Order: sequence, then structure tokens, then C-alpha cells
Amino acid sequence: APIPGNADHGQVLFETCRGCHAIDGYRNAYPNYPVPRVAGQQPDYIVDALKAYRAGKRNHPTMQAQAASLSDQDMADIAAYLAGHGHTQ
Amino acid sequence: APIPGNADHGQVLFETCRGCHAIDGYRNAYPNYPVPRVAGQQPDYIVDALKAYRAGKRNHPTMQAQAASLSDQDMADIAAYLAGHGHTQ
Repeated sequence: APIPGNADHGQVLFETCRGCHAIDGYRNAYPNYPVPRVAGQQPDYIVDALKAYRAGKRNHPTMQAQAASLSDQDMADIAAYLAGHGHTQ
Repeated sequence: APIPGNADHGQVLFETCRGCHAIDGYRNAYPNYPVPRVAGQQPDYIVDALKAYRAGKRNHPTMQAQAASLSDQDMADIAAYLAGHGHTQ
């Protein structure tokens, strides 16, 4: 079963992610690409995506770098934060 | 600039997608994987993802099959529907 996440710790971890995931209009200036909205996303998908980035199965360079530093517990914490009260704006 | 989408047509197109994207708890029974929540997702990301599936750059088999049948306009329509009033449940 998925690891229970600690949303408070997830919020701390997510601070780093705001640079892209919390921008207005969800379109990053440089490099110019559409950023997915993760607030309210369902937790198993967030964990699945982060693990895929960590394993190099999903190939966004910034995301791979971010995910490389996250433990399974960190990922569960971030997922819990985003699912429950992810206010990205 | 992105093609303006027709949300009404997008809603019709999205009916096919409910089988996975609207299930309770967002975890598909078979094959067992976490389904991303797309209601409320930002439109450019939806179009970007669908185009990546259509081009085979993102490799989920079911999604590639679905995206193969969608035109750019269809994708914009679905994105408009999901961004604005995507009630998947």
C-alpha cells in the first residue's frame, strides 16, 4: 500500500517547486513550456510521476534533478500536501 | 498561439475518457495504475501531453491509441472543457 504522507512536511518540500508549479498562467518564461497544475492532483499519480522522474523513465531534465533528491517518504509527503490543500497560487 | 478550444465539443470527446479519468479514487482496477486527475488541469499542459502521446513521446499505450484519433482542434476542445468545467465525477 502507498506510504502515508505527511502534508506539513510536504508543504516545506514543495516550496522549491513553486518556482515553476505556482506561476501565474502556468506557462514558464524560459524554457517556454506549459507547467502542469499539481494542486489537487491525486496522490498516487504524483508519487508515480516523481518515481518515474527519479528512475529516468520520464524525461524532463529539471524534474529528474528535483526527484533525484527525494526519498519515497518525501514523495508521499508532497503528494499528501498537493492532494489535500495544495494552494499553488 | 494555442488554438482556441470549444468546450462543448470537448465534453462530447471526453465521454470516452471517463472510463479511466473519472473513476472513483483514481486507481484503475486493471491494469492497476494511478490515473491522473485532469479536471481543472491547465489547458496548454493537456494539449502538450496529448500531442506527446500522439507523437509517441509519452508512452502510455492506451493514451497513445486515444490521442492518435484526435486532431489539434479536438485536443484544444478537450483542454478547454477540462480547464473550465471538467466535472469528472
